[in-house]
Amino acid sequence: MADVSMGDAVAGDVVESGVSAGTALTLTAITGLPEVQPGNDLGALLCSALRSQQIELHACDVLVVTSKVVAKAENRYVDLATVVPSERAISLAAEVGKDPRLVEVVLWDTEAISRKPKGALIVRHRTGHVSANAGIDQSNLRPAHATQASGPWVLRLPEDADTSAEHLRACLHASFGVAVGVIISDSFGRPFRQGTIGQAIGVAGFPAIFDQRGRRDLHGRILETTITSPADQLAAVSDLVAGQADEARPAVHVRGLRFRPDTSNGRSICRPIDGDLYL
Amino acid sequence: MADVSMGDAVAGDVVESGVSAGTALTLTAITGLPEVQPGNDLGALLCSALRSQQIELHACDVLVVTSKVVAKAENRYVDLATVVPSERAISLAAEVGKDPRLVEVVLWDTEAISRKPKGALIVRHRTGHVSANAGIDQSNLRPAHATQASGPWVLRLPEDADTSAEHLRACLHASFGVAVGVIISDSFGRPFRQGTIGQAIGVAGFPAIFDQRGRRDLHGRILETTITSPADQLAAVSDLVAGQADEARPAVHVRGLRFRPDTSNGRSICRPIDGDLYL
Repeated sequence: MADVSMGDAVAGDVVESGVSAGTALTLTAITGLPEVQPGNDLGALLCSALRSQQIELHACDVLVVTSKVVAKAENRYVDLATVVPSERAISLAAEVGKDPRLVEVVLWDTEAISRKPKGALIVRHRTGHVSANAGIDQSNLRPAHATQASGPWVLRLPEDADTSAEHLRACLHASFGVAVGVIISDSFGRPFRQGTIGQAIGVAGFPAIFDQRGRRDLHGRILETTITSPADQLAAVSDLVAGQADEARPAVHVRGLRFRPDTSNGRSICRPIDGDLYL
Repeated sequence: MADVSMGDAVAGDVVESGVSAGTALTLTAITGLPEVQPGNDLGALLCSALRSQQIELHACDVLVVTSKVVAKAENRYVDLATVVPSERAISLAAEVGKDPRLVEVVLWDTEAISRKPKGALIVRHRTGHVSANAGIDQSNLRPAHATQASGPWVLRLPEDADTSAEHLRACLHASFGVAVGVIISDSFGRPFRQGTIGQAIGVAGFPAIFDQRGRRDLHGRILETTITSPADQLAAVSDLVAGQADEARPAVHVRGLRFRPDTSNGRSICRPIDGDLYL
């Protein structure tokens, strides 16, 4: 692969493969969305919010959308009052000290249990991403149609965040006439390190993984660090820009990269269970 | 702790604690540094490069500096031709299939071996950070004083990146008259997920960890996701802006946050070995 000089990168230019940054990268919080309800057209809401902020999408822009707002639009709410836990959920709940109904919902989305320390269930979601409690939001968010008596409510991750990202990308394309990258991110904890950061669980039209093997540095030496995750790199900081406390910031617009979309997506970021050097 | 509204955040304002973002966050690659050599005054070089780019530091700016350039200035080079491996290094090298001299250097920086799959040594560095091969750069970078016959050369992480960050922060303060945050980052692989991202190994004057327990969201609900790592959130994306192939981009300037410096540093991000839910 030809070497890509990044010194003279111009934002919006398309590179041969992967991602490179121009001199400046700008992240802008998208604000002013109404509280998203099940069935809302999230793509249309985002387009309207972008236009309200005078953001006209360009080629090589990226929109990072929080998984929470995607899950709300997709009605991933569950009223725990309606959940009947299975025997397996009851037994697992006793083992880790959690509500059996919550554990039942976790199991709906679980491909494999990774660890079960006291107080947590670390699982691999059916889409491959590993997190505590299958990424289920337990802050008792409830949809507008919830009755006062019901609950507590939980919110599951989008069913397939890659598909959600593809769908949003198509909406943005239809509205702005340009294909941008879309990343759906969630705040996950991680091994070895304290504190959550954003991680990309759905990716469309943007290199989730950038394999730089064979590229050379300024001195012509083959690069040592060879595979990066541009989608996770953007998701991480978007979490900081979107904030934890403010639902009115459900997306972050990113400008200043150049990239060539490829077929990698959120699933591409998940290490195969048997090939994880770190575990 | 009082709730911090982020909707009306003004970049440069100082918050009561932690970090919040204004509407826009701008990351600018710092370019034009000469190839850094052992003994160079990195702080002075960075100040000069910032001024060449007409960047006048403001309160609540952050500078993310790659660990590689810090390690070069601190002469963390080792010529493997001069290394005599210990018996332990020889035995471990045979086990994982690596150069015993490299393994010896890894052990110098190792507090504990985490995993030893074929071809890699996942270790906890003496500063607490877990990575492959103690973060040692094996791309055969060599200092200007290296003779042609010697080598291969490797480059160890800064001895104590928190101290390096403190030092750079003091240099920047002396030159610009303002206290900014400094993060020293390296590209590490991680469990569960493919692709390296930047991680903060040294932090000064910036909240490495932001404990948001007790804060409330827009609807008055107590936040569920409660501890974030702002330093890792910034380090992750700075890796994308700095790039892997271009040593002339050894730092990234970040503007658009407001934060209150605290006593957390790079070490604060490391999970205690016995308290890691994910392992």
